[in-house]
Amino acid sequence: MEFRSAILVHFLLISLALNVGTLFRNYCNPNLFFPKSSNKNHSFSIQTCNASTSLSSSSNVFDRILHLDYGDPTMFEKYWQNVADKTTLTIPGSQSMSYFSDSRDFYWFLEPEFEKSVIRLHKLVGNAITDNRYLVVGTGSTQLFQAALYAIASPESLTPVDVVAAAPFYSGYPATADFVKSGLHKWAGDATSYTNDQTKYIEVITSPNNPDGFLREAVVKPKNCRRTLVHDLAYYWPQYTPITSPADHDIMLFTVSKCTGHAGTRIGWAIVKDRTIASKMVEFVTISTIGVSKESQLRAKLILDAVASSHEQVSAAPPFFEHSYELMAARWKQLRDVIQNSKLFKLPDYLPQKCKFSGHTFAPQPAFAWLKCEGEIDDCKAFLESHKILTRGGNNFGVSNKYTRMGMISRDQEFCLLRERLYQIG
Amino acid sequence: MEFRSAILVHFLLISLALNVGTLFRNYCNPNLFFPKSSNKNHSFSIQTCNASTSLSSSSNVFDRILHLDYGDPTMFEKYWQNVADKTTLTIPGSQSMSYFSDSRDFYWFLEPEFEKSVIRLHKLVGNAITDNRYLVVGTGSTQLFQAALYAIASPESLTPVDVVAAAPFYSGYPATADFVKSGLHKWAGDATSYTNDQTKYIEVITSPNNPDGFLREAVVKPKNCRRTLVHDLAYYWPQYTPITSPADHDIMLFTVSKCTGHAGTRIGWAIVKDRTIASKMVEFVTISTIGVSKESQLRAKLILDAVASSHEQVSAAPPFFEHSYELMAARWKQLRDVIQNSKLFKLPDYLPQKCKFSGHTFAPQPAFAWLKCEGEIDDCKAFLESHKILTRGGNNFGVSNKYTRMGMISRDQEFCLLRERLYQIG
Repeated sequence: MEFRSAILVHFLLISLALNVGTLFRNYCNPNLFFPKSSNKNHSFSIQTCNASTSLSSSSNVFDRILHLDYGDPTMFEKYWQNVADKTTLTIPGSQSMSYFSDSRDFYWFLEPEFEKSVIRLHKLVGNAITDNRYLVVGTGSTQLFQAALYAIASPESLTPVDVVAAAPFYSGYPATADFVKSGLHKWAGDATSYTNDQTKYIEVITSPNNPDGFLREAVVKPKNCRRTLVHDLAYYWPQYTPITSPADHDIMLFTVSKCTGHAGTRIGWAIVKDRTIASKMVEFVTISTIGVSKESQLRAKLILDAVASSHEQVSAAPPFFEHSYELMAARWKQLRDVIQNSKLFKLPDYLPQKCKFSGHTFAPQPAFAWLKCEGEIDDCKAFLESHKILTRGGNNFGVSNKYTRMGMISRDQEFCLLRERLYQIG
Repeated sequence: MEFRSAILVHFLLISLALNVGTLFRNYCNPNLFFPKSSNKNHSFSIQTCNASTSLSSSSNVFDRILHLDYGDPTMFEKYWQNVADKTTLTIPGSQSMSYFSDSRDFYWFLEPEFEKSVIRLHKLVGNAITDNRYLVVGTGSTQLFQAALYAIASPESLTPVDVVAAAPFYSGYPATADFVKSGLHKWAGDATSYTNDQTKYIEVITSPNNPDGFLREAVVKPKNCRRTLVHDLAYYWPQYTPITSPADHDIMLFTVSKCTGHAGTRIGWAIVKDRTIASKMVEFVTISTIGVSKESQLRAKLILDAVASSHEQVSAAPPFFEHSYELMAARWKQLRDVIQNSKLFKLPDYLPQKCKFSGHTFAPQPAFAWLKCEGEIDDCKAFLESHKILTRGGNNFGVSNKYTRMGMISRDQEFCLLRERLYQIG
């Protein structure tokens, strides 16, 4: 219940902030604002917070509430403003009116062109096996997570199947597994302390992990029981982490939100090995929302194609993942520069690896910073909140409140204000 | 379970039919095909099946399977082809990327412009009170139905709340209420035989009713228990039924699918009196799909505005509801002409009423025909299936298989073939 109330309050607050954000003064580099007029003159250069205006002692820097409790991927807006002409979706009033998109098998609501674009991108990046797999589209990967639980669970079972993930786990899993008190599945907490010798269970592996950015594998050692793994790979893209091999798991979840930044589109996809599981996932989406928005699938198709084309063809726009990689690298460098001089905060240390897609050798630069408060600060979220930085505390992720999660993919302005404020806090 | 399997098979079959449909020969009037090229030359005239080609004795008329088990509203495509220029959605790549749309209160994922268009249309048609109400957008009204059950149920209760509807009830309700074995709510069957003196229950009132087209009111007489009513008003639009007064219920569900024919858009809305219920419904949509597609909301806004404008302004296009009313009237006249000469089938008799919106006095002309097989035919669906007409049998709606539901809003071609085949059957 805490989550449910909290999520609404958080959404309200960040929503307010995002909508009135443009009214606030620019304490960072004025160039970091998004132009209101035509986007023709945007440049693709990576903005860093301006040294002359940042790390200042201006008291005004503390006025604005920074909403970094959500991973709203608005950082990517600027890129898409620059390629607006090529990525404008146009749908005549009579197009895609039917419930049905596809004649193959059980794929009735999947737009075939969307599927092609997903496969094209995975083949380009090399982050997932798609040959001889089933693709299920969903209203975001959150719907597909529920669809996976539904597909794995046994409806005839008298007890719900346990769902676990190693702490710190994504804060959305417990509520999503339990919010309708399903008799099919129930959240059973931290996988690292889970013991189960008898019955079937589901382990969710988020890799790179949300909130802490580490690559992960299953942690529960199966004994006599049947386990099924669900891999949430929302962040397994080359702007965040080195792509070391194509993922090849039974059920893999992806989403455009964190890949391209189109969170409002609500499109996710699952790559599934087993036909029965895929068909049950389709059944879930059929009953729960009678398919998935055609407009969103068509938009996602256009955007994913633009990403692939930016790498495959010479164009005015830089390759999307290269640009986004540089943006994340610049942000993480700036954040680490501030944190290394701080006695209050600590960040995880990641090992560099070579990315087979880009050729860069780099340490993960996640979409969230997993911050630990040092010394006597026991509630890191509360401490930052007292400085008007809203983050999501460790208890939401099954760990201590010494930790808190802070969004790293907001607009430049918010990021620069964050850096500024952390410097001020010391 | 029967429903789940059946739904997939049905979707598969109709999907196949829709996609390969254009390959079939035209046994009806050739003018009834949809032109492949520019739609500039379409006319808005109401097509009727051509007397010279229909009601013939051609054996070929029996070749094609007619998929009328679903209410895919493809009948409306032609209208929108004619107004394509005005109703083309255009979304640049950087638009609506954020999760957030609205800064007011708990409305974080609602596009404010979509809300305005919904209110504008209800005020124009006069079919629902919107002043001092909360509007909740959903991924189709199916998601909002689940959201309503979630909002009404008591999470602290040890037993799920009963959900009932008077038979014949919409075939989707039982599966939607029960598919994840929720501990919050459970399907309790036909409201007409429901007795409950003790506990809270939910009665769903579908008006006009799906499958039989009658206007409805609650049937359970509440005694000592608390009841909550959910009104599914998907078909309370002036092409289907006379609008006699603005609906004014606690929770009212609507959808663009049946209003304008844009089923693939997956957009529904709830008009809710109570703030707590509305906020819980938003909570459901937040947890289950983290909001609703922005693209779909923006498209729905454009389409609903086009409908309103077609009535409010003089334009080349006829007023949408007037045109759709005439189309439904023509189809029902043709269907009744065939059925009245048949000894095998019977249709419901509806009382005419004056529509306060259009001024027409007419009997309901529903989106489905609720057919009864006469005499010794005990399974009307199976009988029609033997003639390659797929419908949905009465047992799916909680009544005898003497009845079956047949879609009336498919493309002209399918409708003419249906009429032809019913005439042949006799």
